[in-house]
Amino acid sequence: MEGDGIQVERRDEIASLNSSADEVSHLALDIGGTLIKMVYFSSNSDWPVDDEGKRSSKEKGSKNCNFVNGRLHFMKFETRKINDCLQFISSKQLHHYGTYRFATGGGAFKFADLFKEKLEISLDKVEEMDSLVAGANFLLKAVDREAFTYMDGEKEYLQIDHNDLYPYLLVNIGSGVSMIKVDGDGVYERVSGTSIGGGTFWGLGNLLTKCKSFDELLELSHQGNNRVIDMLVGDIYGGMDYSKIGLSSTAIASSFGKAISENKEIEDYRPEDVARSLLRMISNNIGQISYLNALRFGLKRIFFGGFFIRGHAYTMDTIAVAVNFWSKGEAKAMFLRHEGFLGAMGAFMSYPNNGLDHLMSKQLVEQLPKSACCPKHEARSPLLGDLTENGSIEC
Amino acid sequence: MEGDGIQVERRDEIASLNSSADEVSHLALDIGGTLIKMVYFSSNSDWPVDDEGKRSSKEKGSKNCNFVNGRLHFMKFETRKINDCLQFISSKQLHHYGTYRFATGGGAFKFADLFKEKLEISLDKVEEMDSLVAGANFLLKAVDREAFTYMDGEKEYLQIDHNDLYPYLLVNIGSGVSMIKVDGDGVYERVSGTSIGGGTFWGLGNLLTKCKSFDELLELSHQGNNRVIDMLVGDIYGGMDYSKIGLSSTAIASSFGKAISENKEIEDYRPEDVARSLLRMISNNIGQISYLNALRFGLKRIFFGGFFIRGHAYTMDTIAVAVNFWSKGEAKAMFLRHEGFLGAMGAFMSYPNNGLDHLMSKQLVEQLPKSACCPKHEARSPLLGDLTENGSIEC
Repeated sequence: MEGDGIQVERRDEIASLNSSADEVSHLALDIGGTLIKMVYFSSNSDWPVDDEGKRSSKEKGSKNCNFVNGRLHFMKFETRKINDCLQFISSKQLHHYGTYRFATGGGAFKFADLFKEKLEISLDKVEEMDSLVAGANFLLKAVDREAFTYMDGEKEYLQIDHNDLYPYLLVNIGSGVSMIKVDGDGVYERVSGTSIGGGTFWGLGNLLTKCKSFDELLELSHQGNNRVIDMLVGDIYGGMDYSKIGLSSTAIASSFGKAISENKEIEDYRPEDVARSLLRMISNNIGQISYLNALRFGLKRIFFGGFFIRGHAYTMDTIAVAVNFWSKGEAKAMFLRHEGFLGAMGAFMSYPNNGLDHLMSKQLVEQLPKSACCPKHEARSPLLGDLTENGSIEC
Repeated sequence: MEGDGIQVERRDEIASLNSSADEVSHLALDIGGTLIKMVYFSSNSDWPVDDEGKRSSKEKGSKNCNFVNGRLHFMKFETRKINDCLQFISSKQLHHYGTYRFATGGGAFKFADLFKEKLEISLDKVEEMDSLVAGANFLLKAVDREAFTYMDGEKEYLQIDHNDLYPYLLVNIGSGVSMIKVDGDGVYERVSGTSIGGGTFWGLGNLLTKCKSFDELLELSHQGNNRVIDMLVGDIYGGMDYSKIGLSSTAIASSFGKAISENKEIEDYRPEDVARSLLRMISNNIGQISYLNALRFGLKRIFFGGFFIRGHAYTMDTIAVAVNFWSKGEAKAMFLRHEGFLGAMGAFMSYPNNGLDHLMSKQLVEQLPKSACCPKHEARSPLLGDLTENGSIEC
């Protein structure tokens, strides 16, 4: 957990779901190669705490959303700073609650001994793809306005018909990228992926710009101009389009293709421009490979998740443009508001009686009244960009 | 044309094709974003030269391969050093020969005025994809052992059945990458491509390692270890495979994913390792997107060409492994020995009565006897790696 923005606490619609007080113990982790995503539940702060630090279970929450009685918290830590995560768990005494500590991602294996040693807890491992799919299915079914398209700065929320959700392609962009064909609850196949993902953006960005944080890099890219470094069709064709094959003069012919100058070194380029070229290269590529896989399996919908997106407009726009370009307008990229927490959310779903399963049925979601009451705290993180702009379902 | 290896002169099997002396004027250029590829014909050096510098046309060559009477030369120049190319043409008086000067690639448009001004010649433009396809078709049909597979250091030459050549996917890896579905002579569609190509390798490599030449970068990559910088599945899973989805612990989960360290800068990594990670990232990606496109159109064969490959064993191996991995062993990557000259060769084919068309018929190729006689000069360029090891059809 660090001050420059990796740690994010989100209090939004899921934070105000009802849950009985004996579920406050829930902690779920998704320990990836680069980031740790955490979901934990806490009951309302005005609930009494007993001598053992546990919340009173007198006021059991109902399922009908009459009042806010608890909160799901979403947090991120850098995996290389896992001690911050351990300290946070310890300071909140999260490791003292409940029977299970569900964890997914490769780090659930890699750091199992560390959790045992430092916190004296065993991690209950949940398979990574199982978690991603469970998390995505839950969010798409239970959370109003979870999915949206993004094009030319315009966000359009989607109404998900539960009877027409499957099959879809789930593209989770973490350090690397997994592409999963989802056919139902727990019914899926990882059909593809690419090693050019969020870790590539961060790693190459770190080497090329000396930016130390992912978010700083994203911010930088926003101010850059990729045309300085990318070789465009017009650069090759003397400013002309290559219209016969449908490439405009501004299309990127070769990412970083103009950076071969003998007389220029990395210091001679603006970090902003480098970051922008990098982001475009990676986003375009992910969009293209995703579309090709959707095509391969006849999937109409592609949902993009994972920490790489981070609600960053330019990232989403580039992915959307790539899908639109390669599909000749036939496919649209869709994004998830809780994009970074699919795995952690899915691991959380492993808890028996977690109280969230009920929301998976269309009926219950429709019973959730809008604008009835407000959660007491509503945090906005600039890191999450405009994904927090509708960060709560009032109930 | 520079000393460190960009300029390549190849004298190989095509160099010893017969041609009548009135064809010595042929010059064809493929002017890409990064490199200029040139093919020109010269008659035998022991032929007399007249007062105007032209070869005598007394000894007209026959088509039956009884003796070597001319030579096709293959050369490369960097596009940014186009003046070297102009000087070379001028010094050889190539611009004084013949009626046409066929040129393809975007530079045929971009530099048309420059050729007019400096050499007083007009470039006769040939469409870029037309040229690539014509060049590939000619080479595959006419040149013995042109195509081969490469796996684990083993090269296996392919017998091309002319009646079973089409359809195939042609992947031309220049600065960017074009993917073309070829259905016959002049019958094709550019179905896909990627901006992550040779220009990306060179550009990013230049920024990251300060290597100034493409070949130096390739050489460097050969000595590197990508595991230092790439995040492997085992790095995430504590040394374990992620066997459920078929990923071994050594599979790359995230290219450059380990380079996010706050305490390390670019100077702290060995250029060899950086170059290797870069080459693997790009080769893998091209192999994957190519396979997905072959799958999309039901194409059994994928031929890889373009200057990026340059006969480099590790590049071919990575592309071959990617195609093998993603196709689960069902598809094989195939390479072309004259991989960098498809476009220039195709432009050369535009000459009326070029004498090469005849070789397109299966009969004539089969009439070419092996080991009958040897060309007088046989140059080997270390740049071309083992692609020159069988650099001549003896006739």
